[in-house]
Amino acid sequence: MSVNLIAPNPAELFSIAGVRIGVTEAGIRKANRKDLTVVLIDDGASVAGVFTQNRFCAAPVQICREHLASGNGIRAMLINTGNANAGTGEDGRVRAVHTCQALAGHLSLKASQVLPFSTGVIMETLPIDRIEAGLQAALQDAKPDNWLRASEAIMTTDTIAKAFGAQVLIDGVQVSITGISKGAGMIRPNMATMLGFMATDACVNPAVMKQLATELAEGSFNRVTVDGDTSTNDSFVVIATNKAAHAPITSLDSAAGQALKNAMLGVALKLAQAIVRDGEGATKFIAIKVEGGKTQAECRQVAYAIAHSPLVKTAFFASDPNLGRILAAVGYAGIADLEQTGIDLYLDDVHVAVKGGRNPDYREEDGQRVMKQTEITVRVVLGRGDAADTVWTCDLSHDYVTINADYRS
Amino acid sequence: MSVNLIAPNPAELFSIAGVRIGVTEAGIRKANRKDLTVVLIDDGASVAGVFTQNRFCAAPVQICREHLASGNGIRAMLINTGNANAGTGEDGRVRAVHTCQALAGHLSLKASQVLPFSTGVIMETLPIDRIEAGLQAALQDAKPDNWLRASEAIMTTDTIAKAFGAQVLIDGVQVSITGISKGAGMIRPNMATMLGFMATDACVNPAVMKQLATELAEGSFNRVTVDGDTSTNDSFVVIATNKAAHAPITSLDSAAGQALKNAMLGVALKLAQAIVRDGEGATKFIAIKVEGGKTQAECRQVAYAIAHSPLVKTAFFASDPNLGRILAAVGYAGIADLEQTGIDLYLDDVHVAVKGGRNPDYREEDGQRVMKQTEITVRVVLGRGDAADTVWTCDLSHDYVTINADYRS
Repeated sequence: MSVNLIAPNPAELFSIAGVRIGVTEAGIRKANRKDLTVVLIDDGASVAGVFTQNRFCAAPVQICREHLASGNGIRAMLINTGNANAGTGEDGRVRAVHTCQALAGHLSLKASQVLPFSTGVIMETLPIDRIEAGLQAALQDAKPDNWLRASEAIMTTDTIAKAFGAQVLIDGVQVSITGISKGAGMIRPNMATMLGFMATDACVNPAVMKQLATELAEGSFNRVTVDGDTSTNDSFVVIATNKAAHAPITSLDSAAGQALKNAMLGVALKLAQAIVRDGEGATKFIAIKVEGGKTQAECRQVAYAIAHSPLVKTAFFASDPNLGRILAAVGYAGIADLEQTGIDLYLDDVHVAVKGGRNPDYREEDGQRVMKQTEITVRVVLGRGDAADTVWTCDLSHDYVTINADYRS
Repeated sequence: MSVNLIAPNPAELFSIAGVRIGVTEAGIRKANRKDLTVVLIDDGASVAGVFTQNRFCAAPVQICREHLASGNGIRAMLINTGNANAGTGEDGRVRAVHTCQALAGHLSLKASQVLPFSTGVIMETLPIDRIEAGLQAALQDAKPDNWLRASEAIMTTDTIAKAFGAQVLIDGVQVSITGISKGAGMIRPNMATMLGFMATDACVNPAVMKQLATELAEGSFNRVTVDGDTSTNDSFVVIATNKAAHAPITSLDSAAGQALKNAMLGVALKLAQAIVRDGEGATKFIAIKVEGGKTQAECRQVAYAIAHSPLVKTAFFASDPNLGRILAAVGYAGIADLEQTGIDLYLDDVHVAVKGGRNPDYREEDGQRVMKQTEITVRVVLGRGDAADTVWTCDLSHDYVTINADYRS
């Protein structure tokens, strides 16, 4: 089940000069499914990543950070599903490094030029023998137009692959952007059980690459939530292959920087929202806009309190305009000096609450009408400033419980 | 459904000298159910309360705070179910005061000597006409041995009434303690959709009454969670009628103060845990002990992160030892300098994780055995200090979704 999630359009998944992708079935957890992906990057690319804030971050996340910091120039990525290599202690680190060494050996690279990614079950030993055995087949499969297969190979509980692309003119030169993502549960800010990879042939100075990745994550993946569980493995990597024939972007504030960032943000937001639309058991896609706050941060804090409330989420599942639950979540969001008499609540165009109380003109059937939609906008006006922010989430259904009660079986 | 929750034992529900209780069916939301309770308190009692931290606190909570602060001496409580009088703005306050005035009129008291409590659906208008019409019958019903009926009259989605009692010697004088509570969802620290009332005939100086109520709440109701939703209406009130023939307790640190507090804490903890055992859809009762922290606060923070994780809760529902989800929750609990290599995890007597990784001796069948129990203790050792804390929670089941998707219908 997913909410208005469109399957990848192959015509939109542009090959990116300087990137080749290979996919294979390595039998990491289950037979007969694509579960191992290699991404090969030409020399000279700019690469940056943003990773989970979870202190129990998985071994591959630790190794990614170290390899990116080594400054040796990232030339390959190795992605497996079926096993997250998280909660695996020192042994997990050794195994993650081992897989990097194995791929580096095939490519005559240093191990630190390889970034490892794992997603799947936590606290089980990574089967490095199967990964190593699959590398040859994955490398033989490597080609530029393999984004669709890669988006399929990184799925776990996802029901639909997630891949989007865009093209934009930079200094009159057309550049391409393609991205893929996965993740349908354990999704919340500061990343998710989520892997996201984007590549462009645009030229971006390595010095601004980290800022670009951070701003893209901030505007997309860090604003979606399914269940509030911040995963151990969340990773978002951006690659600029520097192949396009325009002058390198040295500032995101330049016209070229803005143009590229906005185009990439459009793709990142589609990738992030696709994760919510495919949220485990999701039947509704809900935008939560909080306005009139003193700061953007407090608006996001309120939006997440609403988005994480099991009571709010089950009410959306039931299409029940039990909207007091939203006000209750606003109240416990943690804003110590919030005055309830300043608060208005809207459900799409329906004005539900005025100054902290029920709007006298509000009719239950109007709320009911909006709640029955599959796409709903909740708008809360705090009445204490000019800041605003938006997050996206889904409802909490029987299927969420079923999926997560059965995930390992 | 509830987890090993014992129905009230009438023999344990001691009448408290100086307290009479009356119950009636006022038809507030549904016909033919007890929904209105009056508690009459003799002159000279010490009364204190602890209330929700939710900034969207309900009108009766606001009025309770004001009436307690008035210093006029609380002489009665008025409790309705079926309607929470929350999210009702200024009109809700007016209505709450109105019901206090009505009861005060019957009793020749000031309105400020009455505390109002409401629980039920949010954002609907309190039907004061029905409450007023029911007062006469409730008052006629008033008698000392009505605790059981009161515990039934305050239920909402509870499946079993919650009432416990205890007796203890204070300076050689036997005093009695009786308490009731309600609340099965919207439960989390800093109170819950929870009402709790305790009375004792012990003599407690008014000056230490607030401290007593706060410490009792801290040791009981503020350590339980069902779904993490802090309600708008949570209220916990403690009454000491000062009828017993011992010298008044002027310090909780005195021998008499300790004896009374410990006995009352035992009752409060039973009342609080009963709420979790009756948690909406609960099939498991789970104690989460976090040890080896730098502070008790950080231990509780970690315990609540585990207790609120939908992924952890659904794993318990499924009896699936998918224990990496617990480590992931520890990781995102918000302790910025947490080192995963210091962390051990136990499930009852089973040592699951050592230094952040899987215990080599851990066998899946051992974890499976514990997960199948209806009562489970999760123990996390942070390895960074000597502090510890415990919270209690339940699992997240299909029935939770069903109950909360259907609550208003």
